[in-house]
Amino acid sequence: MSDTEFLLDFQRSERIGIGEAIYAEGKTTIQLTGILDHAAARDAPTLLTRLAANQFEALPRRQRDRMDYDPVSRTGFFGTAAPLRGPTQVGVLCAGTSDIPAASEAIRTLRFNGHAALAVHDVGVAGLWRVMARLDEIRPLPVLIVAAGMDGALPTVLGGLVPGCIVALPTSVGYGVADGGRTALNAILSSCAPGIVAVNIDNGYGAACAALRMLRLLGKPGA
Amino acid sequence: MSDTEFLLDFQRSERIGIGEAIYAEGKTTIQLTGILDHAAARDAPTLLTRLAANQFEALPRRQRDRMDYDPVSRTGFFGTAAPLRGPTQVGVLCAGTSDIPAASEAIRTLRFNGHAALAVHDVGVAGLWRVMARLDEIRPLPVLIVAAGMDGALPTVLGGLVPGCIVALPTSVGYGVADGGRTALNAILSSCAPGIVAVNIDNGYGAACAALRMLRLLGKPGA
Amino acid sequence: MSDTEFLLDFQRSERIGIGEAIYAEGKTTIQLTGILDHAAARDAPTLLTRLAANQFEALPRRQRDRMDYDPVSRTGFFGTAAPLRGPTQVGVLCAGTSDIPAASEAIRTLRFNGHAALAVHDVGVAGLWRVMARLDEIRPLPVLIVAAGMDGALPTVLGGLVPGCIVALPTSVGYGVADGGRTALNAILSSCAPGIVAVNIDNGYGAACAALRMLRLLGKPGA
Amino acid sequence: MSDTEFLLDFQRSERIGIGEAIYAEGKTTIQLTGILDHAAARDAPTLLTRLAANQFEALPRRQRDRMDYDPVSRTGFFGTAAPLRGPTQVGVLCAGTSDIPAASEAIRTLRFNGHAALAVHDVGVAGLWRVMARLDEIRPLPVLIVAAGMDGALPTVLGGLVPGCIVALPTSVGYGVADGGRTALNAILSSCAPGIVAVNIDNGYGAACAALRMLRLLGKPGA
Amino acid sequence: MSDTEFLLDFQRSERIGIGEAIYAEGKTTIQLTGILDHAAARDAPTLLTRLAANQFEALPRRQRDRMDYDPVSRTGFFGTAAPLRGPTQVGVLCAGTSDIPAASEAIRTLRFNGHAALAVHDVGVAGLWRVMARLDEIRPLPVLIVAAGMDGALPTVLGGLVPGCIVALPTSVGYGVADGGRTALNAILSSCAPGIVAVNIDNGYGAACAALRMLRLLGKPGA
Amino acid sequence: MSDTEFLLDFQRSERIGIGEAIYAEGKTTIQLTGILDHAAARDAPTLLTRLAANQFEALPRRQRDRMDYDPVSRTGFFGTAAPLRGPTQVGVLCAGTSDIPAASEAIRTLRFNGHAALAVHDVGVAGLWRVMARLDEIRPLPVLIVAAGMDGALPTVLGGLVPGCIVALPTSVGYGVADGGRTALNAILSSCAPGIVAVNIDNGYGAACAALRMLRLLGKPGA
Amino acid sequence: MSDTEFLLDFQRSERIGIGEAIYAEGKTTIQLTGILDHAAARDAPTLLTRLAANQFEALPRRQRDRMDYDPVSRTGFFGTAAPLRGPTQVGVLCAGTSDIPAASEAIRTLRFNGHAALAVHDVGVAGLWRVMARLDEIRPLPVLIVAAGMDGALPTVLGGLVPGCIVALPTSVGYGVADGGRTALNAILSSCAPGIVAVNIDNGYGAACAALRMLRLLGKPGA
Amino acid sequence: MSDTEFLLDFQRSERIGIGEAIYAEGKTTIQLTGILDHAAARDAPTLLTRLAANQFEALPRRQRDRMDYDPVSRTGFFGTAAPLRGPTQVGVLCAGTSDIPAASEAIRTLRFNGHAALAVHDVGVAGLWRVMARLDEIRPLPVLIVAAGMDGALPTVLGGLVPGCIVALPTSVGYGVADGGRTALNAILSSCAPGIVAVNIDNGYGAACAALRMLRLLGKPGA
Repeated sequence: MSDTEFLLDFQRSERIGIGEAIYAEGKTTIQLTGILDHAAARDAPTLLTRLAANQFEALPRRQRDRMDYDPVSRTGFFGTAAPLRGPTQVGVLCAGTSDIPAASEAIRTLRFNGHAALAVHDVGVAGLWRVMARLDEIRPLPVLIVAAGMDGALPTVLGGLVPGCIVALPTSVGYGVADGGRTALNAILSSCAPGIVAVNIDNGYGAACAALRMLRLLGKPGA
Repeated sequence: MSDTEFLLDFQRSERIGIGEAIYAEGKTTIQLTGILDHAAARDAPTLLTRLAANQFEALPRRQRDRMDYDPVSRTGFFGTAAPLRGPTQVGVLCAGTSDIPAASEAIRTLRFNGHAALAVHDVGVAGLWRVMARLDEIRPLPVLIVAAGMDGALPTVLGGLVPGCIVALPTSVGYGVADGGRTALNAILSSCAPGIVAVNIDNGYGAACAALRMLRLLGKPGA
Repeated sequence: MSDTEFLLDFQRSERIGIGEAIYAEGKTTIQLTGILDHAAARDAPTLLTRLAANQFEALPRRQRDRMDYDPVSRTGFFGTAAPLRGPTQVGVLCAGTSDIPAASEAIRTLRFNGHAALAVHDVGVAGLWRVMARLDEIRPLPVLIVAAGMDGALPTVLGGLVPGCIVALPTSVGYGVADGGRTALNAILSSCAPGIVAVNIDNGYGAACAALRMLRLLGKPGA
Repeated sequence: MSDTEFLLDFQRSERIGIGEAIYAEGKTTIQLTGILDHAAARDAPTLLTRLAANQFEALPRRQRDRMDYDPVSRTGFFGTAAPLRGPTQVGVLCAGTSDIPAASEAIRTLRFNGHAALAVHDVGVAGLWRVMARLDEIRPLPVLIVAAGMDGALPTVLGGLVPGCIVALPTSVGYGVADGGRTALNAILSSCAPGIVAVNIDNGYGAACAALRMLRLLGKPGA
Repeated sequence: MSDTEFLLDFQRSERIGIGEAIYAEGKTTIQLTGILDHAAARDAPTLLTRLAANQFEALPRRQRDRMDYDPVSRTGFFGTAAPLRGPTQVGVLCAGTSDIPAASEAIRTLRFNGHAALAVHDVGVAGLWRVMARLDEIRPLPVLIVAAGMDGALPTVLGGLVPGCIVALPTSVGYGVADGGRTALNAILSSCAPGIVAVNIDNGYGAACAALRMLRLLGKPGA
Repeated sequence: MSDTEFLLDFQRSERIGIGEAIYAEGKTTIQLTGILDHAAARDAPTLLTRLAANQFEALPRRQRDRMDYDPVSRTGFFGTAAPLRGPTQVGVLCAGTSDIPAASEAIRTLRFNGHAALAVHDVGVAGLWRVMARLDEIRPLPVLIVAAGMDGALPTVLGGLVPGCIVALPTSVGYGVADGGRTALNAILSSCAPGIVAVNIDNGYGAACAALRMLRLLGKPGA
Repeated sequence: MSDTEFLLDFQRSERIGIGEAIYAEGKTTIQLTGILDHAAARDAPTLLTRLAANQFEALPRRQRDRMDYDPVSRTGFFGTAAPLRGPTQVGVLCAGTSDIPAASEAIRTLRFNGHAALAVHDVGVAGLWRVMARLDEIRPLPVLIVAAGMDGALPTVLGGLVPGCIVALPTSVGYGVADGGRTALNAILSSCAPGIVAVNIDNGYGAACAALRMLRLLGKPGA
Repeated sequence: MSDTEFLLDFQRSERIGIGEAIYAEGKTTIQLTGILDHAAARDAPTLLTRLAANQFEALPRRQRDRMDYDPVSRTGFFGTAAPLRGPTQVGVLCAGTSDIPAASEAIRTLRFNGHAALAVHDVGVAGLWRVMARLDEIRPLPVLIVAAGMDGALPTVLGGLVPGCIVALPTSVGYGVADGGRTALNAILSSCAPGIVAVNIDNGYGAACAALRMLRLLGKPGA
C-alpha cells in the first residue's frame, strides 16, 4: 500500500456545506505534501488541523508560503479563507488559560468558513462573577462554544442562564482524576442544564463544525 | 431535612425558553404528588420524564386524570402541551427497535414544547439501503436526532450525507462491550463526520432540548 | 467462624471523639441483634447507618422500641442522641431532590453527635439564582457539606464564594456517564476552586464525621 | 537468566501452517541478532514485525543485507518470502490515511506467506460514496481485512454489504474518547452486522494470520 | 413513534447468505408477535436469539406451535431450519459447564443455517489432558468455535495446536476481575497464538455467523 | 484569541481568604511573564505551583530575582510570603520518600499563607512502628495532611488514632495497578476510619488550601 | 449440546493434591444432580462452593442427606471431609463482619482438606489496637489468609509485622469507589509490604487452595 | 521538608526475615547516595531495585565500586549477597523473551537473599510442547514464579500440572487490550486452576519475597 495516494473527500464539502479540512496529526511530510499538492491543483482552499509547528516547518517552501499558520491552535489555512459573513453570531468561551488551544482551534475553523467569533476567556465558575460580568454580551449570541477542562462546570452554569445553542468543548486540561478530559466530558453530559451538547475532548474543530451546521438555520423560515 | 419541600426552577423555563420538566426517576410518590400540586396551583404545564408505569399508577386520581401518560417513553404531560407550531422541522431516527424508548422520549419532549417530529426507525447501518431509502425525506430537515446503541454508527453515516444539525442520542442497547451505551457514545464522539454532537446515554429529553435551542434560530436573521 | 461474635470498636469513640456507629448494609438480623444487645448492655448510644426499612422491621421489638429510625436517611439512633450544643454551625446543601437521602444521612449523623444543621436544598447550579438567593445565610457558617450528583458542579461554585470549610458529598444520582457518582466525585476532585475536599459517593456519614472533626477546632486558640 | 538464549517456536510453523515470525518490539539488538543468526543457521525465512527503523539500523550488516525492510509497516522479511500463489483473494481496506501502518503490516504478512492483497484506502463511512464506488471490486473477494480507528464503523457497513469473511482490524487512530483504539474495537465487537470478527488493536499481523487460516479452506471440499 | 411497525432486514439474508434472525432481548410481546406475523406472512423461516423462556411463553399459541424453542441457548426456530448439508465441519468447544449457554447459541445458529457441529465440552486448560485427549477429533475440522470465560486461555492453547480457523467466543462466566467476560475477551485478543479472532462476550450467534462466512469458502477454488 | 490577556481572579483571594496562586503547568513563558507583570503592577504576592525548573529558568531575570523558587515542590513565591502566625498547627506526613514532592507543595503553600508545618516522613504502615514512634508529636495537631501513594493505607491508620482533621493527599507513586494514584485515592475514600477527606492525586496545593480553611476555625467561638 | 454430560477433572485432585471441588454458581439443579451422582458413584468426596441456599434445597433428598451444608460460606461437603492433620497451621483474619462469608469459604475449604484454621475477626486497621492485641497468637502461624474489603489495608499492616506467608483475600465489601472489591485488590497488590500475594475478589476457595499448596512445604527438607 | 533525611526500615528486615531493599525508581542521586551511605555506615547489605542504568552511573565511584549492578533486571547488590543455602528450590519461568526483565528481578532478589533459582524461558502456552518438555524438571520444585504478559495463560496451565506453590508474576508485555499487564493480571486472578496467587504487574521483587516467605516453611514440622 503506497502511502501517497489519496481519495480525498472533496465532495463532502459540497454535500454538507463545511469547507475541506485535513487532520494532520500523525501524517508524514510526504503524505501532507501530496495532499496539499492535490488541493492546490484543484484550487481548493483547505484547513489543516492538529498541524504541529515542526510538521509545518517540514513542508516545502511553496506550500508554507501559501499557508496562514497559527501555532497556538495548530491550524493552517492553505489558500484563502472564506470572506466574513455579516455580524458575529458565535461566542467562544473558555474557563481557563489552558483551554485556549482548543478554543482557538474552534475560532480558526469558524474563521476559515467565514464566521467571526467573540472570544471570552478566563470565566471559570470557581470565580463566578467573571462570567456574570460578561453575561449581557454573551446572552444574545445564537451559538456558544464553551471550552472547559477539569470539572467542566462552565457549560452547566451557562445552560441555565442563556437560551442559545451551547456546544460544550471539554478539554484535556487537568491532572489525576481529571483523566485527560474524561471527567469534564462526563460532567458536561451529566449536566442537568437542559439541551447542552458535547463534542470529543479537545475537538475544537468539531465544535466549530457543529456551530456551522447551526448557523445555517439562521435566515431560514421558522414556525 | 423534609423531603416534601421544593424550590422548583420555574423561572428557568422563561430564561431559556424550554417548558418545565421533572425527572421522576427515584422520586417517591410523596415527592411527585407535592411537585404536581405546586404545578397545578401555579397552572404550569409540566413534563414528567423517566416516570415508570408503577410511579404513574401510584399518583392520586386527581393528578392521573390531568396527565397524558405514555408508557413506552415513560413520559407524562401534566396539563396541556404547547400548541403545534407550523411544519415538521425535526427528524428522529433510530437504528433499531430497542432504541424506540429513548427516541420516543425525545419525540414526546418536542411535542410537549409544540413541535412535531418525523419518526424514522429501523435504519441501522448494517442494512445500509434502509437509511438510503429514506434520505430524500430526511435530508431537508434542519434538525435530526439520531438514536443509536451498540456500535453507534448511524450518526456518522448521516453526518456525511446531510447538512443539517445532528444531535446523536446514544442508547444503552447492547451487551458485553457495548457497555451500557458507552461504546455507542464514544464511537459518536470519535466520529470523523464533522459537526456531530452528543448527549448522555438514553437522554432523549436532553436531545430534544438541544433541538429546541436550535429551532429558535429558524426565522432569525442570518449573515 | 461464627458470625455472632464481635470485637466492637468502642474505644475508638473515645480516641477520636466521634460517637459509636454501625454500618448495617449486608448485616443479617442475627448480627444486628447481637451488636445492639452488646451496645445495650454497655449502655452505649449507637448510630446505625444504611439500615434498610426491612432490616429495621426484622429487629426484635425490644430493640425497635429503643430506636429512633428515619427511613429517608436509613439511619437509626439506638439509645439517646447527644444533647444539642449551641448554635447551628453546619450547613448541608443539596443540588437536587434526589440528593436528599445522602444529605439526610449527614444531618442525622451530626444530630446524633449533638449538632444541628441548616438544610438548604434544590440549589443546583443549572439554576444559579437559587444558590445566590441563599448565600447570605450560607456564607457565615464555618462548615458546609455540599451534596451533588450528576455533574457535581455545586461545590465548585460555592468554593469560590464562601471562605468556610467545604466537604463535598458526591451522590450516585444520575444515569449513563454519571456512572453511579464517579463523575460527580471526579469533577469535585478536579475542581479549581481551592480547598474543597471530598468523601466517598453517598457517604453522608463520612461527610458528617469530617465536619465533626472540624467543629472541634472552634473554640481552640488560633494564631 | 541470560537474555541471549532462545527456544524458538520453529515447530509451530509446521503445525499451524503459518511462517515463522518474531515480534521485535522491546527486544534488544543482542536478542534480535541472536534470533536472526539462529534463523540463518536453520535457513528459515523469518518475518519480523514491529521492527522500528532504529532497531533495523542497529543490526549487523550481514543481517541487514539479507532483510527486505519496510518502515511504514515496520516489517522485515529475513530470507525469501514464499512465492505468490494464484490470484488475489484478500482485500485490505482502510478507513483513513492514518490506518495505513496497521493495514500494511497485514499486507506484508500476507505477502511473506505467499498471498497478494488488494489495498483499498480512504473509504471511511463519513463519506459513504467512497466505499460504494469500490464495492464491485471488493464484493467477490473471499476474505476482507478492514482497518478502522476512531468510531470503527467501516466493518459494520461492509458486514451488511458483502458475504465474505470480514476480519476487523481496529487501529489506535484518534484522540480523547477514541481511547487508543478501544472505542473502535468495542464498536466492532458490538456491531449488529452478523459474523464480523476482530483482532487486537493495531494487530495487522494477527489479522493476516487469521486470513491465512481462512484461505486454507479454499479448495477443500464443502457440503 | 409506534413500536409495532418494522422495516425488517429481509434483504440482508440474501445479500450475505445468512438466514434471518431477530435479537429478542428487551423486545415486548407486542413487538415480537408483530415481527413473527410479518415473517409468517412472507413464509420466511426466522431464528430468534436471546428469547427468554417467559418471552416465549407469552407468545400467542399460533406462534409457539410453529416454534422449536430451546431454553438453554434461549433460541427459537420459527419455521423450518435449513436441511443439513454434508459432513460436520465445525467444532464447538467449551472450557467449562457454565459456557454451555453461549456455546449452544452458536450450535443452534449453525443448525438453523444447515450445519451440524461437534460439541466438545469441559476441556478447560487447567486440566490440560482433557483437551489433549480430544485433539485428534478436533484437529481436522476446518472451523472451531471456542467458548471460554474466566481467564479465556483455551483459544490460545488451541491456536498453537490446530491449523483451522478459530473463532474465540468469550463468555461472561466468572466473578470479581473476570469482569463480566472482559478479561476473557482481552486475554483472547492479547493471545500470541497467531490468527485467533474474537466476537463480543456471550455472542454465540455472531460466532456462528462468522463460521458460516468461513464455511462458504469450502469448495471454492484456491491458489 | 490572544493568549496574553488575562482576567485574573484577584478578588477571590479576598472572598475566601486564600492568597493568590497560579497553576503554571502547560503555560507558556509569554503567558507566565504576562501574569507576573500584572501581579507586580498590583503589588500582589503570588504563589506559583507546578512551575517546572525549565519554566522558571525561562522567565526574565527581573522576575526570577523576585521569586523564591523550590525545585522539589516546583513552587515559587513571587513577592513576599505572609508573615508566620503563631505556633505550628499543621502536620504534613508522608508514607515514603517518593511522596515528598506532593507533600512539599502543601508545606510551601501553607508557608506562603503564613503557616509553618511539622514535616514527618517515611512513616508508611508497612513499618508500623515508625508512625507509632511519632504519635505523641502528631496527635495534638489540629490539622494533618497525610500524603500516601501505592496502597494509600496511612490515612486510614491515622484516622483511628488521632482526633484532628485529616486531609488525605493521594500521590501518583507506584506502578501497575497503583494506576497513577487512583488506587491510593480510592482506598482513602473507601476507608472505614471515619471522617477522612481527600483531594485530587498529587494536589498538595489543594490539601494546603483545605487546611487553611480549617485553620480559620481556630479562635472562633464554639458550642 | 446436552447440559448433563461432564468430563470432571477427577485426575487433577491426584496431580496437585487438592480435593475435588465444584463451583456451583450458575449451575442448574439438573447439572448439579448429575455431577453429584457421578461423584457418589465414584465414592469421591466433593466440595461444593458458591452453592446458594435455594440451590441446596432444590437437590434431591438422597443428595442433601449426604451433604454438610453451611449457608454463611455457601459451601457443602458432599461425602466425608478429610480427617484433621495435626495442629492448626493457618490463621484466617478478617477486617470486618461483612468479610465473614469470604473468610468462611476459606476456612471450610481448609477443613474439607484436613486442616483446621484459627479464625480472627473484626481486626480492621482503623482500630489498630485490635490486630495488635492478637499479634502474639497470629505471628507464629506459617500461613495467614487475610480477608479485607473497602481499603484493603489489613494485609499491608500485617506484612510488616509477621514473617509467615500472607495470602490476601480482597472482598467485595464497600460501596462507591470500593468498586466491588477492585480497590481492595489493587491496594493489596500495590502494597509496599514485601511478599504479600493475592487471589481474586471473594475467592476464599482459591486462598485456601494456595494455603494448601504452601502447607505441603512443611516437613520437607529445607536448606 | 528536606529530601535527604530518612527513617529507613532496617528493623523490618529482622522482623520478617527478608533482606533490606530500596526501590530506586524516581529517587534522585542525592537521595540514593544518602541512603547508601547510611547502609554502608551500618554495614548493612542492601538490594536496590528499579535502578536505571543512568541512576547507577550517577552514583559516586565509592558506591558504584561496592555494587554488583545488573542492567537487565535493573538491580544492584550493595554489599555482599547472602551465601547460597543448599539445593535449588525455586523455578522462575517466563512465557516470552520480553518477560525476562521482570523474571530477572525475581531471580536476583532470590540470589541476594541466598537462594539459587532454575530459570526456564520461552515456554509460552501458544507452543504448548515447550513447557511440556520441561515438566519433569519443573514439577519437583516446591516454589515456582511464573512470569507472563499478554494473555497470562502460562500460570493457569501450570496450575493444573504441578502441586507446588505458584506465584504468578504478570508483566506489562503486550499492546492494545493487553493494557500494560492488566489483562495478564486479571486472567491470572480469574484462573480456575486452584491456588494460584499473584503479585502486582512487573513486581519481580515482590514475587521473590513471597517465595522467600514460602521457603521458610521448608524444614519446619508439618502435620
